[in-house]
Amino acid sequence: MMRAEILATGDEIRTGALVDSNSAYIAELLEQSGIEVTRHHAVGDDLVALVAIFREISARADAVVVTGGLGPTPDDLSATAAAQAAGVELALDQRALEDIGAFFNRRGRSMSESNRKQAYIPKGAVCLYNAHGTAPGFEMKLGQCTFFFLPGVPFEMKVMFETQVLPRLRTLIGTENQFRLARVVSTFGLPESVVGERMAGIETCFPDVKVGWRAKFPEIQVKLYLNARDQAQGKKILGDAVLWAVQRLQPNVFSTQERTLSAEVGELLKQRGATLALAESCTGGLVSNWITNTAGSSDYFLFSAVVYSNESKVRVLGVSEETLAKQGAVDEETARQMAQGARRVAGATYGLATTGIAGPGGGSAEKPVGTICIGLATPEGSKSLRFALSFGQRQMNKQLFAMMALDFLRRYLTEKV
Amino acid sequence: MMRAEILATGDEIRTGALVDSNSAYIAELLEQSGIEVTRHHAVGDDLVALVAIFREISARADAVVVTGGLGPTPDDLSATAAAQAAGVELALDQRALEDIGAFFNRRGRSMSESNRKQAYIPKGAVCLYNAHGTAPGFEMKLGQCTFFFLPGVPFEMKVMFETQVLPRLRTLIGTENQFRLARVVSTFGLPESVVGERMAGIETCFPDVKVGWRAKFPEIQVKLYLNARDQAQGKKILGDAVLWAVQRLQPNVFSTQERTLSAEVGELLKQRGATLALAESCTGGLVSNWITNTAGSSDYFLFSAVVYSNESKVRVLGVSEETLAKQGAVDEETARQMAQGARRVAGATYGLATTGIAGPGGGSAEKPVGTICIGLATPEGSKSLRFALSFGQRQMNKQLFAMMALDFLRRYLTEKV
Repeated sequence: MMRAEILATGDEIRTGALVDSNSAYIAELLEQSGIEVTRHHAVGDDLVALVAIFREISARADAVVVTGGLGPTPDDLSATAAAQAAGVELALDQRALEDIGAFFNRRGRSMSESNRKQAYIPKGAVCLYNAHGTAPGFEMKLGQCTFFFLPGVPFEMKVMFETQVLPRLRTLIGTENQFRLARVVSTFGLPESVVGERMAGIETCFPDVKVGWRAKFPEIQVKLYLNARDQAQGKKILGDAVLWAVQRLQPNVFSTQERTLSAEVGELLKQRGATLALAESCTGGLVSNWITNTAGSSDYFLFSAVVYSNESKVRVLGVSEETLAKQGAVDEETARQMAQGARRVAGATYGLATTGIAGPGGGSAEKPVGTICIGLATPEGSKSLRFALSFGQRQMNKQLFAMMALDFLRRYLTEKV
Repeated sequence: MMRAEILATGDEIRTGALVDSNSAYIAELLEQSGIEVTRHHAVGDDLVALVAIFREISARADAVVVTGGLGPTPDDLSATAAAQAAGVELALDQRALEDIGAFFNRRGRSMSESNRKQAYIPKGAVCLYNAHGTAPGFEMKLGQCTFFFLPGVPFEMKVMFETQVLPRLRTLIGTENQFRLARVVSTFGLPESVVGERMAGIETCFPDVKVGWRAKFPEIQVKLYLNARDQAQGKKILGDAVLWAVQRLQPNVFSTQERTLSAEVGELLKQRGATLALAESCTGGLVSNWITNTAGSSDYFLFSAVVYSNESKVRVLGVSEETLAKQGAVDEETARQMAQGARRVAGATYGLATTGIAGPGGGSAEKPVGTICIGLATPEGSKSLRFALSFGQRQMNKQLFAMMALDFLRRYLTEKV
């Protein structure tokens, strides 16, 4: 099995000014491709340190992906250090120079002298062209180890890694005729341990499918991937594995298309030609913020009333003053009236409401922090539910409340079909 | 100068399932304390790999902070690997065992056999007790290098690092009588390069103060820190440096207290006994979501109308249909009427409104994507402004729009004083 290491460079990472997320991204794709990642490293913009760690890695690993240090400034030292470690000179790559010139031309600017430097790569290295920035990367060997140098800007790095480095690595390990396929099953409402238990046995049914999960609070994603020689057949197997997972995880699966829950709810509304209005108290605008993160959400999203004060609940949504006085703001009946009010005011197909106690203050013995009431108003009538969560942290509670409200609507929309 | 390395352990980090944010946190505090961080590493839950890298680091560094691998499961191997690297046995730390037992007692559970294992540390190591979890850490020497082993759970790691590791390192480098002081100046609206230019010269005026900056989109933070023997004197110097920075960065500084802009606006409203209502179109609830992330925001925040449809702008906020028909939804006059409507409906001191084009669709030659109109209604009257930004990404635009609206209100509130 091929053994790879990952090296992030730059003083921002070394000193902790920047969290390195590139290495995790690279590690995940390498592992999925059947390449074992043995070590990650980070060093600063220091020629001696760079040369030393290049040499160490070259004695240990089959391949290494290096990010950063390809920019135009004097502290960008990756190419110089690679050349020194290999005992070669830097040489101009003519196409890289033209690419950089074209990059500036497209933006109506002229290339500065410092950018010329970026077109110099170690003699004998193969240039990896960068369609999205000024920094080309390169591939070269040091001893038996193949080095891939990529820019540190995540967007540029990712495109180059996926389109140039991964195919090249797959050739090296003899899987170039395989397709790497991946699917994601997104769930909400089950603890990670339960998701794990429910998935037990998938490797027996689908021996070629690898499974991972990721807790992306407040959702848990199950990732299924497969390396296949026949793309159509691989997609079929992976599709069957997704169905297997969905059956075991229902009704907590909200997407198999890598959609967020708010985008999924939007899709369901769009399919039905329906519209939505919200009434948010404890979620404070978070549900509408999520909904409007999706481009085109104005097709189905009309209005949200973030009614933090009781007065606004009454004046904007027509919640009964008597209900508020008797039952309080955090109450199923209040939630129901809020949902009805939002639906009526906006003229929407559905009204969805949240009222609860996000904390840290405001709780009582009867209604502790974590209490959430959700109201739903539909053309057929209205209903509401009350839950009690036990998280203490305000922003986590807001996120859970918002997810629970959206999931309530999702289940209503899908179970009606 | 003391040279330190950082090692994160665990298969989740090695395989990229988890982004390692612990190392950046540790690196920043080490650097601020005058300790040079030379390398970061990560390896998986593998005894051979752990022993090998412990030995390599011990030959190179003066100190190393290791995170992870102290849990109760068989793949938690840090103590075993440390013992093996040092050629010693594991030994039971009686107080650590009692701590773990007490941890379970407090939660009304009994300690399982696997947790006993966590109380075993290498013979000769000094235990670092963990008040917040079951995993104690330990300190030990390998050759000339001092190793600090900490749990991987960020919250537990941070408390132990700050209260036990940092003081010990300061003793080692002879700065134990120094206080490490830090202040943050938070800015919005200036490019990073301009913030850097404005800060040029601070090292001449304040030779002991170190400066760093961090782009935390959409804000840019200037960090000032100082190691001082006399705490009061150090605070005075740092306070003067903060004033120096604020003078050069005004009016773009919104906090010197590490507050978010929304919390700062909340504080300003509270000081004035004033209340706020919002009318959000393009920001889609993001402004109210931010405002309500602050505990106690119900003291000053009453209501937000997220008016995505034109109909809701008219019905809820009383925006003139004629204005909408003639000027359109993205318009200064519309923004002004939205702000007035929100203020009136909620009975608030201030009304703040956003309407704009977040993209990617919906732009025109006259009003391209990135156009934002902000309206503000006050007891003295109302006004509005229009800006054009050139970011293409929808969620970035929403964040910038929301920050611009809050900053408009902040400037209004502070300049009146």
